[in-house]
Amino acid sequence: MHATTTVRIGISARHVHLKQEHADILFGQENYLLTNFKDLYQPGEYACAEKVTIQTAHGKIDNVRVLGPYRPETQVEISKTDSRGLKIAPPVRNSGDLDGSAPITLVGPAGTVELEQGCILANRHIHLSPKEAEELHLINEDIVKVEIPGEKGGILYNVHCKIKDSYKKEMHLDVDDANAFLLTGKEDIGYILKD
Amino acid sequence: MHATTTVRIGISARHVHLKQEHADILFGQENYLLTNFKDLYQPGEYACAEKVTIQTAHGKIDNVRVLGPYRPETQVEISKTDSRGLKIAPPVRNSGDLDGSAPITLVGPAGTVELEQGCILANRHIHLSPKEAEELHLINEDIVKVEIPGEKGGILYNVHCKIKDSYKKEMHLDVDDANAFLLTGKEDIGYILKD
Repeated sequence: MHATTTVRIGISARHVHLKQEHADILFGQENYLLTNFKDLYQPGEYACAEKVTIQTAHGKIDNVRVLGPYRPETQVEISKTDSRGLKIAPPVRNSGDLDGSAPITLVGPAGTVELEQGCILANRHIHLSPKEAEELHLINEDIVKVEIPGEKGGILYNVHCKIKDSYKKEMHLDVDDANAFLLTGKEDIGYILKD
Repeated sequence: MHATTTVRIGISARHVHLKQEHADILFGQENYLLTNFKDLYQPGEYACAEKVTIQTAHGKIDNVRVLGPYRPETQVEISKTDSRGLKIAPPVRNSGDLDGSAPITLVGPAGTVELEQGCILANRHIHLSPKEAEELHLINEDIVKVEIPGEKGGILYNVHCKIKDSYKKEMHLDVDDANAFLLTGKEDIGYILKD
């Protein structure tokens, strides 16, 4: 069987997920509350008004957006391009799979958090509700290929399917994939290939 | 028929090809001679010791390498990522196909050249000798797909075949494609897909 279906694409700029304890240090207040700046497409997820600097011994990037809500572990997601300036080699990982990921330091207006690990290149992935997944005969952590149309189009391999009640169908790609494939950030779509 | 063959990959960092007249202005000497810093894989092509700044009203990038030998027209090749900082929208083009390409300014140690056009995103392409092309049943300007292995692997569409006596088989990709597919710059290979 060869089924194809369209999927909207969301481009993930570099960002940081924080645990409560780290936000308290970075922003200098116990039980600090993140400020919802803008809801994201995935229900319950939001970009925050808060930004931090991420740095290593070799480089830094200012104004990296924090995403809410809080997570059990602090996680920094960057692109391969970003990693070259920081001179670190983060592994390609599922969100939350941080063992052995790259060390990085976060600097906020009130304090600094040195992470021994937590920096990753997020793998290419698709969020799906259980119903959307069932229609596509996909189960959690299935790996699919996705075709991207356009002048610099092609097929992306190793796209991980992530299924959760709160999710809506959307593929997340990092900025390197987005720029390589000339995605615009507006109404980009891909085609899930199953074979 | 489905034939596959390997091709070495060269990553093209941002660079500038100059016409003699522009080099004379940038480096302040009539009949200026470019300095061969390092031969490239394609016979007769070389990276020069000379570097220039490329700039627009909105941004600039220093230390952009000049490649030799001289060309009939000055041409600046950058990545989509670079173009965002410069706030220009260069088209995806064959080398030398500059009509309507993006304007950009070059600044050298002795002078400045304002180009009304000349900045492009180089298309994905493969250099081939006539013999190598014949073995693959390819003719000049054929478009092929190329599979890239690896953790962020996939297939690149719209790869242009360029055949010339002096060429040796090598695919050129820009830095966005390279970073998206986690190419290392060392012994990267792709597989030409014909179908």
